[in-house]
Amino acid sequence: MTGSSTADSSATAAVPVLDLTASGGELTAALVDIPSVSGDERLLADAVEAALRSLPHLTVDRDGDAVIARTDLGRSERVVLAGHLDTVPIADNLPSRVDGDLLWGCGTSDMKAGVAVQLRIAATVLDPNRDLTFVFYDCEEVEATRNGLGRLARIHPEWLAADFAVLMEPSNAQVEGGCQGTMRATVSTSGHRSHSARSWLGDNAIHKAAPILQRLADYVPRLVDIDGLEYHEGLNAVNIQGGVAGNVIPDACTVTVNFRFAPDRSEAQAEAHIREVFDGYQVVVTDSAPGALPGLSHPAAAAFIAATGATPQAKFGWTDVARFSALGVPAVNYGPGDPNLAHTREEHCSLAAVDECEKRIRDWLQD
Amino acid sequence: MTGSSTADSSATAAVPVLDLTASGGELTAALVDIPSVSGDERLLADAVEAALRSLPHLTVDRDGDAVIARTDLGRSERVVLAGHLDTVPIADNLPSRVDGDLLWGCGTSDMKAGVAVQLRIAATVLDPNRDLTFVFYDCEEVEATRNGLGRLARIHPEWLAADFAVLMEPSNAQVEGGCQGTMRATVSTSGHRSHSARSWLGDNAIHKAAPILQRLADYVPRLVDIDGLEYHEGLNAVNIQGGVAGNVIPDACTVTVNFRFAPDRSEAQAEAHIREVFDGYQVVVTDSAPGALPGLSHPAAAAFIAATGATPQAKFGWTDVARFSALGVPAVNYGPGDPNLAHTREEHCSLAAVDECEKRIRDWLQD
Repeated sequence: MTGSSTADSSATAAVPVLDLTASGGELTAALVDIPSVSGDERLLADAVEAALRSLPHLTVDRDGDAVIARTDLGRSERVVLAGHLDTVPIADNLPSRVDGDLLWGCGTSDMKAGVAVQLRIAATVLDPNRDLTFVFYDCEEVEATRNGLGRLARIHPEWLAADFAVLMEPSNAQVEGGCQGTMRATVSTSGHRSHSARSWLGDNAIHKAAPILQRLADYVPRLVDIDGLEYHEGLNAVNIQGGVAGNVIPDACTVTVNFRFAPDRSEAQAEAHIREVFDGYQVVVTDSAPGALPGLSHPAAAAFIAATGATPQAKFGWTDVARFSALGVPAVNYGPGDPNLAHTREEHCSLAAVDECEKRIRDWLQD
Repeated sequence: MTGSSTADSSATAAVPVLDLTASGGELTAALVDIPSVSGDERLLADAVEAALRSLPHLTVDRDGDAVIARTDLGRSERVVLAGHLDTVPIADNLPSRVDGDLLWGCGTSDMKAGVAVQLRIAATVLDPNRDLTFVFYDCEEVEATRNGLGRLARIHPEWLAADFAVLMEPSNAQVEGGCQGTMRATVSTSGHRSHSARSWLGDNAIHKAAPILQRLADYVPRLVDIDGLEYHEGLNAVNIQGGVAGNVIPDACTVTVNFRFAPDRSEAQAEAHIREVFDGYQVVVTDSAPGALPGLSHPAAAAFIAATGATPQAKFGWTDVARFSALGVPAVNYGPGDPNLAHTREEHCSLAAVDECEKRIRDWLQD
C-alpha cells in the first residue's frame, strides 16, 4: 500500500477484552498489563468501555478517556463508585508479576485493584439496593487542570449526581472521610535599602519578619472532631525569601505559609483566620482549595461504614473527594491498595485484600 | 606592508604627553580625556610613567599598569600618596566638559582629580619635609582579586613601605580615617521534611529561625571611639532562604548576616562575636576583610590633620585604606572629589577644590 497514509496505530490497536468473571486479582493483573500512564489512558478506557457495554443492565457514557456506567432502577438512593484509570510513569515494573498473595507492578495499589473491584461489582451486582454510578476517569496523577473528574464536574455534573460517593483510592481498606482544605498565602514585610556599611540609614525587612516566624512557631493548631473523625490542622511556613545583595540592607522579605484547614472552615473563613494570625502584615492569598465534609451521617454513608466494619479516619491531604463534596456529594476514600506503596518502584497489592474489599462493597449493596 | 603581521594597536598608540605645569583642573581634564576603564588603563599608565620619568628627582618603577615613583632624600619619615587610574564604565560622559568651576566627565571625581593632585605634587614639591612615594594603580573599581594595590602588596610590599599613607579617593576634602571590617556568615537551622498536610510529622526549620531574626532585631550595635573617630558597627541579615516546595515542611533555613565591625576588633574577634550572638545555631563564616585602625596618633598623620584643617571622620565602608593597614601603614582617604557623584552619569568635580586640595597637601609637605 505504498503511498497511502498510515492510520494512527493507537486508534486501531485491538481493544483488549477484559474478563469480568475472572477473580479480582486476575482482573487487577489484566488491568495493570494495559499500561495507562496519565495522558495515555485511551486503550484502557476502550477496554473498560467495551466491557461495560457488554452488560445490559448498565447505561454507558464516555467523555474523552472517562467512562461512566449507571443503573436506573428507581432506588431511593444513588451511590457512586469512582476510580482513576491512569498511573504514574512506569518504573521498570511492568508487566505484572504474582508472588504468593502479592501482585507486583505499576498501578497495582494505585489504583487498578480498586478499578477491578468497581468492574467486578458492575458485572455481578445486578440488583443492588441503591442505584449505582461507576466512574472511571483519566489524569488523576498530574496537574489538577487535567484531572478527568474535574472535567466531568464542569461539563457533565449530572453524571456525578448522587447521595454518597466512594473513591476507591488505596486506603488499606480503611475508610478515610472528607478532606482538609489547603490555602497558601504570602506574608510580607517591607523596609528601606541602604549600604550595609551604613545600616542605620536603612530599615531591615528580614529582621521585621521575626514576629511572623515567632507566631508560626507559637501557633497551636486545632484538632477538630467532625462526624466522629478527628481532623488536624496546620499552619506552616513553606518558603521564606529576602535579600538584595551581600552589602545591602534588604527592603523586602516574604514568607509563604500553607494553611491546612479542617472542613468545618470555608475558604473565606480560612483566609480570615490567616489574616487574624498575621494581623499587621501584608497578606496575599495565592492559591486555595476547599475541604470536604465527610458527610458520614447520611444513611447511605452510615450503611457503608457498617458494611465495611472499618473505623473512619479523617483524610488530611487534599483528594478528589473534595470534587464530589463541591457538587454536594459526601464522599470517602476506601480501596484495597496500600497508600504507602503508591508511586514506588516496589508497588504491589495483596490479592486477598482485593477480594475482601469486593466482598464488603457487595455486602453494602446487597444488605 | 601586505602580508606582515600587524602590531597590537594599543601597544603602539602614541603616548599622550601630560603637562604637569598646567593647573590641577587642566591636568584633571587631560587625565579624564584618556579613557581608562578598569582593565584598559595601559595608555594612561604609559602617560603617567612617561611624565614621572621626566622628573629627575624621582625613581620610577612599574608593575603591569601600576606606576610607583619615590624620592630618596633620607628623611626621617616617608609618606605615600596613592590613587587608582581606572574608572567605572563610561556613561556617555566623555570627553570632559568645563562649565564655570565644574569639570564634568567620567572619572572626574573618582578619582582623576586626586591623581592630578598627586602628579602636581610630584612635579612641584622638589624638597619635601618627608620622603614621598607616589602610587598609581589599576583595577580598583572591579573585583578585589584584580586590585592593583593588592597585587603590589603581594609582589612588591617594599614599594608600599611608609609611616603613613593618603589615598586620594573622593572625600569632599574631608579626612576619613581607617575603615571598618566586614564579615559575612551563614546562620542556619535544620529540621525534618514532611508533607504539609501532616505537618506534625515534620520539624519546620523556617519557624526555628525566628530567634535568629529576633536577636538581629534586638541587636544594639557598638559606637566606638578610636583616635577621636567614632565608628558605628552593624550586624544585619542580608539574605534569608528556606523552602522546598509549597506542600513540604522545610528542613533547612539559612540566614546570611553581614557584620561591619570597628577596627578595634580583629577578624578572629569579630567571628567570636558573631558566634556568641548566634549561640546555639550553626554558624559558617563565608567571607571576611579586616578593618583598619586610623593611626592618627603618628606624627606624620597628626601633621597631615593639622595641615588639612579637616575634622577626621571614621570610614564605615571597606576601602583600600585597609590594604595599607595590613602592611602596618596607617592610612586615610583625602581627596578633592565628591563621593556622592562617583559612578554616576552626572559625575563632575570642582576645579577650585582640586587647587585647594593641592595647596593643603603642599602645606603639609613643606611646613
